[in-house]
Amino acid sequence: MTDRYAAHRAIARDLGAEAVALVPGPNFERLYRAPFGTNERPLVVVIPVEGAPAAVVPNLELSSFAKLGFEGEVFDWRDQTGYADAFAALSRHLPLRSIAVEGQVMRVFVHHALTTASPGIAVLDAEREISGLRLRKTDDEIAAMTEAIRISEAALGETLDQVKPGMTEAAVERLLVAALFAHGADDQAFGALVAASDNSAHSHAHARADYEIRPGDALLLDFGAKKGGLCADITRTVFVGHATDEAQAVYDTVLRANLAGFAATRPGATAHDVDDAVISVLEASPYADRIRTKTGHGLGRDVHEAPYIMRGNSQTLEPGMVFTNEPGLYRTGPGGFGVRIEDDVLVTESESRSLTTFPKELKVVG
Amino acid sequence: MTDRYAAHRAIARDLGAEAVALVPGPNFERLYRAPFGTNERPLVVVIPVEGAPAAVVPNLELSSFAKLGFEGEVFDWRDQTGYADAFAALSRHLPLRSIAVEGQVMRVFVHHALTTASPGIAVLDAEREISGLRLRKTDDEIAAMTEAIRISEAALGETLDQVKPGMTEAAVERLLVAALFAHGADDQAFGALVAASDNSAHSHAHARADYEIRPGDALLLDFGAKKGGLCADITRTVFVGHATDEAQAVYDTVLRANLAGFAATRPGATAHDVDDAVISVLEASPYADRIRTKTGHGLGRDVHEAPYIMRGNSQTLEPGMVFTNEPGLYRTGPGGFGVRIEDDVLVTESESRSLTTFPKELKVVG
Repeated sequence: MTDRYAAHRAIARDLGAEAVALVPGPNFERLYRAPFGTNERPLVVVIPVEGAPAAVVPNLELSSFAKLGFEGEVFDWRDQTGYADAFAALSRHLPLRSIAVEGQVMRVFVHHALTTASPGIAVLDAEREISGLRLRKTDDEIAAMTEAIRISEAALGETLDQVKPGMTEAAVERLLVAALFAHGADDQAFGALVAASDNSAHSHAHARADYEIRPGDALLLDFGAKKGGLCADITRTVFVGHATDEAQAVYDTVLRANLAGFAATRPGATAHDVDDAVISVLEASPYADRIRTKTGHGLGRDVHEAPYIMRGNSQTLEPGMVFTNEPGLYRTGPGGFGVRIEDDVLVTESESRSLTTFPKELKVVG
Repeated sequence: MTDRYAAHRAIARDLGAEAVALVPGPNFERLYRAPFGTNERPLVVVIPVEGAPAAVVPNLELSSFAKLGFEGEVFDWRDQTGYADAFAALSRHLPLRSIAVEGQVMRVFVHHALTTASPGIAVLDAEREISGLRLRKTDDEIAAMTEAIRISEAALGETLDQVKPGMTEAAVERLLVAALFAHGADDQAFGALVAASDNSAHSHAHARADYEIRPGDALLLDFGAKKGGLCADITRTVFVGHATDEAQAVYDTVLRANLAGFAATRPGATAHDVDDAVISVLEASPYADRIRTKTGHGLGRDVHEAPYIMRGNSQTLEPGMVFTNEPGLYRTGPGGFGVRIEDDVLVTESESRSLTTFPKELKVVG
């Protein structure tokens, strides 16, 4: 029987730590193949370099935790008495001088519970190594992501069919999000962004309840469903009524950059190579001053994860990696607008495949 | 001009710390009255006991951060070079030997960035004190929560009108969540729970795609909209076609416990008093062995926050506090079912007021 903790033990060993600690979140869910909520009650699994793991679990979560088939000792605690005793029992059961943790997931109160129970313990941030185990997606994960994308694209199509001049950005967003859930999303992968006209040029825009979209507006929709723990992340930019000459030229440039990104994606290429191919197209255009962001980010159980597709990142692409290819050009200020085209790309054994299939030719709606 | 950091400075002073650090999250949003996303890029605001605050901000977030009207020095950083230099510059600008942080919000990578830049700095977990500033809701917050509840109740009514025997739990959940967004929710406050029959007896149930609801089933819906940063959290349990005698008797017991909770809620009473009033009703019933949980939890920018309504909690209730009153009785196993009735309660100057207004008489649907 294989040891499902083999990779975690190897990470601890490589870092010179005596154990890895996991808390509920994407790495925990990948390991145990089960959704598990996070809340104000500390829960931690400790995986030593050798031997059985151990855990601290809130008493209220014991029945959910039992479903994970956990192999080791469990120290539970109740709200009435607090968790200090359970962490102390864990440290007596499994005395440690060093532990590797997920720095982007574990919160300070769990860190403090561990260091209080084991004074002097060294806590190493092994975010990169632990989350690195999720870089190559499994077939199950790719299937779930494909379903998340199918739901997202169905919702997008349905929404674009209903867009009319005079609708507010917020109204379009409501249609889109309601459609995501109607089509079977477990959740949104992140808060949808629907922005028109000059608002579409801002990377952290919020849909406005007081702006009614007008003929000639760019309308940017960046959103995604979550299904079975996996995220979709899609952007399309459409035009209301008609696209201006400037809009058409900008759109064409962004689309060429997106296609250059696909052409550069294959096993053995680096994240740098893909970003360089994409950004080079934008830089060679008359719109180089509208570049704001790198090409994309890894996508999986987190909507932002490794590999980050940017110049200088020497990460080699491997089959099973999934990332976004999302070049954009943004002109802020009066009369400004943004165009972004975002696909979700799977690195295959020989090259790459787009998991997103929604057409990306310039589209006029309303 | 008032100092918007006065309460934070007082917390640091009381704890013997030299500053408070805040990261994006509910306390940050309450302070700056603006939504602010959290992601893989560290952002921290440091508020010393005296003098101007300072911050480390990702370069990409500078334009969003500018809207907060921040009063102090900002050290920004870019993905290409990382954040170590910005934290080092912060620690030169504002040398500190101790800092109080939100233990439930700040993650270990930010903790490590602070301690790496200021070796030997003491990091105190001031979660209770910092989040305690959110205990008494402002009028704006109560207005937003009231709107979140209005949206939630509209979605619930619309959903219950469509429930029919033969629908799956998952199909009912899809209707409910789509209706939340259609009625204007910014987000869900948490993942909705829709569970029928024996599934309704589990506190961490997931809606089943393969169970079709049947006449006689209990159907429990626990859900809420998020609006303007504030959460609703409502549960109603209805019965499909008809309610059995057992169901009616259990429902009546839970409703009496809920009403006893309202009767016990007033300024000056404690969280203990309210839970004791509620649980005493359940304990005196023939269904005492079906008690699983305390009465409720505070509600605001977080869906679970202080005050926790449980025996032993001597927290005094004050005007402006909001919490859930959600007694339940749960019989697991074959033929089992759960009943929960959950309202959102505001402590007023003289007594209490239910922000939820959805009827709670036993309701038969389908």
